[in-house]
Amino acid sequence: MPSRGWLLVLCLAALTGKSAGAVVNERTERNCSLIPPYLPSTAVNTTLRLQELRERMVPMNISAYIIPGTDAHLSEYIAPRDARMAFMTAFTGSAGTAVVTQTKAALWTDSRYWVQAERQMDCNWELEKDVSVSSVAEWLISEVPPGGMIGFDPFLFSLKTQEDYDINLESSNRSLKSLPVNLVDQVWKTRPPIPPHNLTRLPDRVIQRSWQMKVEDIRNQMRNNPYEPTALLLSALDETAWLFNLRGNDIPYNPFFYSYTLLTMDKIWVFLHTNRVAEDLKVYLNASCDGALCVQLKSYDTVLNHLKTYVSQPGVKVWIGTEYTNYALYEIITPQDRLMTSSYSPVLTTKAVKDETEQRILRDAHVRDAVAVIQLLMWLEKVVPAGKETELTASDYVNQCRNKQKDSRGPSFETISASGPNAALAHYSPSNETNRRLTVDEMYLVDSGGQYLDGTTDITRTVHWGNPTDMQKEAFTRVLMGNIEISRTIFPSGTRGVNMEMLGRRALWEVGLNYGHGTGHGVGNYFGVHEWPVGFQGNNIPFRAGMFTSIEPGYYKENDFGIRIEDVVVTVPVNTKYGHNSLTFDTVSLVPYDRKLIDTSLLSSEQLQWLNKYYETIRRLVGPELDEQKLYDEKDWMLKNTEPFIKSGSSVSVCSSSLTLISLTIALLHNIA
Amino acid sequence: MPSRGWLLVLCLAALTGKSAGAVVNERTERNCSLIPPYLPSTAVNTTLRLQELRERMVPMNISAYIIPGTDAHLSEYIAPRDARMAFMTAFTGSAGTAVVTQTKAALWTDSRYWVQAERQMDCNWELEKDVSVSSVAEWLISEVPPGGMIGFDPFLFSLKTQEDYDINLESSNRSLKSLPVNLVDQVWKTRPPIPPHNLTRLPDRVIQRSWQMKVEDIRNQMRNNPYEPTALLLSALDETAWLFNLRGNDIPYNPFFYSYTLLTMDKIWVFLHTNRVAEDLKVYLNASCDGALCVQLKSYDTVLNHLKTYVSQPGVKVWIGTEYTNYALYEIITPQDRLMTSSYSPVLTTKAVKDETEQRILRDAHVRDAVAVIQLLMWLEKVVPAGKETELTASDYVNQCRNKQKDSRGPSFETISASGPNAALAHYSPSNETNRRLTVDEMYLVDSGGQYLDGTTDITRTVHWGNPTDMQKEAFTRVLMGNIEISRTIFPSGTRGVNMEMLGRRALWEVGLNYGHGTGHGVGNYFGVHEWPVGFQGNNIPFRAGMFTSIEPGYYKENDFGIRIEDVVVTVPVNTKYGHNSLTFDTVSLVPYDRKLIDTSLLSSEQLQWLNKYYETIRRLVGPELDEQKLYDEKDWMLKNTEPFIKSGSSVSVCSSSLTLISLTIALLHNIA
Repeated sequence: MPSRGWLLVLCLAALTGKSAGAVVNERTERNCSLIPPYLPSTAVNTTLRLQELRERMVPMNISAYIIPGTDAHLSEYIAPRDARMAFMTAFTGSAGTAVVTQTKAALWTDSRYWVQAERQMDCNWELEKDVSVSSVAEWLISEVPPGGMIGFDPFLFSLKTQEDYDINLESSNRSLKSLPVNLVDQVWKTRPPIPPHNLTRLPDRVIQRSWQMKVEDIRNQMRNNPYEPTALLLSALDETAWLFNLRGNDIPYNPFFYSYTLLTMDKIWVFLHTNRVAEDLKVYLNASCDGALCVQLKSYDTVLNHLKTYVSQPGVKVWIGTEYTNYALYEIITPQDRLMTSSYSPVLTTKAVKDETEQRILRDAHVRDAVAVIQLLMWLEKVVPAGKETELTASDYVNQCRNKQKDSRGPSFETISASGPNAALAHYSPSNETNRRLTVDEMYLVDSGGQYLDGTTDITRTVHWGNPTDMQKEAFTRVLMGNIEISRTIFPSGTRGVNMEMLGRRALWEVGLNYGHGTGHGVGNYFGVHEWPVGFQGNNIPFRAGMFTSIEPGYYKENDFGIRIEDVVVTVPVNTKYGHNSLTFDTVSLVPYDRKLIDTSLLSSEQLQWLNKYYETIRRLVGPELDEQKLYDEKDWMLKNTEPFIKSGSSVSVCSSSLTLISLTIALLHNIA
Repeated sequence: MPSRGWLLVLCLAALTGKSAGAVVNERTERNCSLIPPYLPSTAVNTTLRLQELRERMVPMNISAYIIPGTDAHLSEYIAPRDARMAFMTAFTGSAGTAVVTQTKAALWTDSRYWVQAERQMDCNWELEKDVSVSSVAEWLISEVPPGGMIGFDPFLFSLKTQEDYDINLESSNRSLKSLPVNLVDQVWKTRPPIPPHNLTRLPDRVIQRSWQMKVEDIRNQMRNNPYEPTALLLSALDETAWLFNLRGNDIPYNPFFYSYTLLTMDKIWVFLHTNRVAEDLKVYLNASCDGALCVQLKSYDTVLNHLKTYVSQPGVKVWIGTEYTNYALYEIITPQDRLMTSSYSPVLTTKAVKDETEQRILRDAHVRDAVAVIQLLMWLEKVVPAGKETELTASDYVNQCRNKQKDSRGPSFETISASGPNAALAHYSPSNETNRRLTVDEMYLVDSGGQYLDGTTDITRTVHWGNPTDMQKEAFTRVLMGNIEISRTIFPSGTRGVNMEMLGRRALWEVGLNYGHGTGHGVGNYFGVHEWPVGFQGNNIPFRAGMFTSIEPGYYKENDFGIRIEDVVVTVPVNTKYGHNSLTFDTVSLVPYDRKLIDTSLLSSEQLQWLNKYYETIRRLVGPELDEQKLYDEKDWMLKNTEPFIKSGSSVSVCSSSLTLISLTIALLHNIA
């Protein structure tokens, strides 16, 4: 699934939904310039809640209030009870920031979500399209009078976000004001409660390092740090979950649970909803002692006070990662010499490199996941011509196929099942209002993934069941070339993804095409489907052996079609002629690409060779699994779709002189004869 | 000429200078572990000056003193009077930072200069090889007691540098102390005076925009900025020189003069050594009025007080670029709301895009420059076998050739003329001590450039006059492939160099090779040879049409040989099949590569095609110039060296199946016959 990425060059404009294949033909977007404004049935009236929020703002003496789309752990995906931005704006996309003043209200979201925002918001809200902090700050400067204060909930800002706003506002005579309460929560009467589910521990068969080993490893990194931290504060939800090999259920599609950890050389304090920790888990965590390897379970809400007490002691120094620590916790770590920062905590950088077991089981999960996707593709090929299937039925089908696989834990995100123009929206998911019928006349894009006890998957395939246009074939082939060029690149260990990701774009750039999202993101072992800080974005860490990332170039033609090819790969060491310490990518997603869309004459011989080798790997690894699952039709389908390619087209022209030579030879021999 | 770059992966170790070709055989590096220490004749005794500096540190109450290698304008190349680091350490490389405590002294410099430092420094000095601020900070934390102060001259720190130190020291209980005097200047009795040369204005024939037009353009950018700056402070030396179309002579190889500018909507104050402005220049600058287009000339040393007075007025806001404004000026712009920052001033970003005249004349300068380099290469080919030429005589020769060209203003940097192992040091320049004889048994690298009234040039060629090894040919070809791959790439306008520069490395990465410097830097119109912020480094601005940059991949084999191929290119619009707004590079350096070192079987057909097209361009542009200069032998040499290449090697294997087919055809016809 694509992430926002560092480059948003494409402006995907509104989708009208009027093409032949659409199930629903209603005008789906608001039109606030009409009198009265036109609102689609998907829009929500937010007048009352805005009025209540504005009333709450008055006694706080603030001219504007910022409502981020994240939670106290700076999560990318959040629980329903943290969807404050969605509650206020009615926009439910996964990324955005809302700002409310006494007279105006605006939402910032990126190009993936502009259409969705126009469908969900009423005319109380402006849509702003440049999502940089500087754009929000400019808006604030124009709307807030000089000397005015801008309120925010410090739990919902990373310290980096706070700093960004500060820098952008610093010379404007407007300033931020950290508020002790969340004003949206005061207005939100129906805010969902904390889910009741108990936490679970991972079974031993998917674990190489016990939590005690991990704790010792992290403590060693603290010991070896020249700044001599005495404690490490973990705020991101996957940090505590990873460290203790635990999982939860608080966030849809993500097996996380609300938690913080404060780790010192001789203590471990974990802050969570203690009522959700059963007795056996307390035993597992050594929760009843207080030694260096005993976990002291504290109530989630006490983290602020506990941290305050800890930093009040002389000689302590708390290490935090600036990307995932909220401003509320950061601002109590004073004076300055009790604070130590790095972009990411040592837990996140350690987790980024998978151990041998994690690598093995994550590869295994991808074999079973390939079976589910092959089942979907074969089924669609068969049933689409009958004209009864839709984006939603396809999405249901692939979810069912995954559910049947061993150790399945449901989808890893909401399936993107998109036909024709809907696929031009990189992050579209079908709903009853937008659902299109699948037809042999449109391209179809399916971006889906599963959670398995042994790994998280994420794969995108784009197919056409009829006759693709030349332009569709060319664009698909060039997207594929991008995928292959990154995959087959050999690079020194320590190279950053952002310095290589143009290889995913280059074949498109050559003909003036591009895509407006990132090129890939890390994936986890039964964890987040966007597992940072691995990937190809500017703030991702350098690649080392054992990291898993997606590679997912695409191309989107507004109101027409969308292409994306996404595979998960793992960085592996490779021998080279002269050097050492080189890496390349090994693809672990194992589903063939639509042959009909590949123009082999555009591929270099290196690219063709890579493709044929990849198809051999699919046969070798997925073939036996299909046999074992007795999916013989699917095996035939897979074999048919992984036939080796033979270079056509350009090889003819390369050798045309030889063909001339053949003619000459023939002519000459005739004469001789 | 290579810049340090963002990636320093290669550790070029010491060069012993003991190979057969060396003119001088003395052990050239210090050995401080011997008793007594061994010091080469190039080392300087710094004991006395260190002692004096340490005495000056005591009353300042500082435990350490930082001596940067730059000047008050954060220049990359500095005047002799600003070479404070070199005076203290005896190390004369163009990049480094020195730190002195009461008991220790250390120099930080990058891999280009490690050998040079070991040759020039005595054993008072440690050499530190990790040049990051965090490395200096770690050293300071280990050497300065808790609570200790670290002194620095705020004129020699950019605010970014100060901030970097601050961040790295913030949790250590050691802090920076801005000192009102420079302690090295107090010790440096023989510090050179300000040079007496008058400033000059550029002739109209090399100018498209008058200074008045440029001032109006910059004022418009100030007007349109949402933060509403009232003034712009220009600190980098090329900012004032560019804005007023002026040049000077204060820095070797760089036509700069000491200056600052404070520009408001209705005033222009320029701070410089007013005694160097002749009457005609005062007229040119409208120096005797005080309107919006009158330049008020102020004494260089008054900038701080003038700025202080300006910012004391209510309602003002000063725009500065954070990369080139020194901390001394920055720290007086208070309170915060009187300051506005961007990484680079609008003058630097505007200057980065050359106007039509600048583009035309910079291309012209490269044609004449190519003549000089072709003269050198032809001459060397002829005379080297006789065994009398050296790195120094070759360097002299190319300088003479350039001097004869129209509008020549001398070399644009100290020529890098390096044979055999000397070339493995990316920034080596020959001296009497290190000078090697040129021979048919060694590779030779020459990186040189000229200043011309119409442009600055910078070009590197690597040649072999005998029989190169297979490895040398392969490495050279792969470096060339890197150069070609960047040059021929088509990319969207607005792409950043750092996101493309891996194309310069990829062919080397494939076999485990790499290089440890940057991939390219902007060049100016009779300006700096490293003209930032254009280029391929992390802090460079995105490419737009009309920017000039070098492309210069390389490969360096320690103690053996060095390869670099450097060309200057300009970004030009290019039409593509589907898109608009695409750019590519057009190479303006026009000198053929050594044919002997090119293994065409490694080149793709696209690369070969690019190479042949480039050679056609050389013939078309340099041919007439050689004719006009009556350099007929040089023309023959150029024609011989720009013969089109025909693809060999791999094309044979591509067509082997066709050849088999021919045999079959023959056999078949025989049977028929």
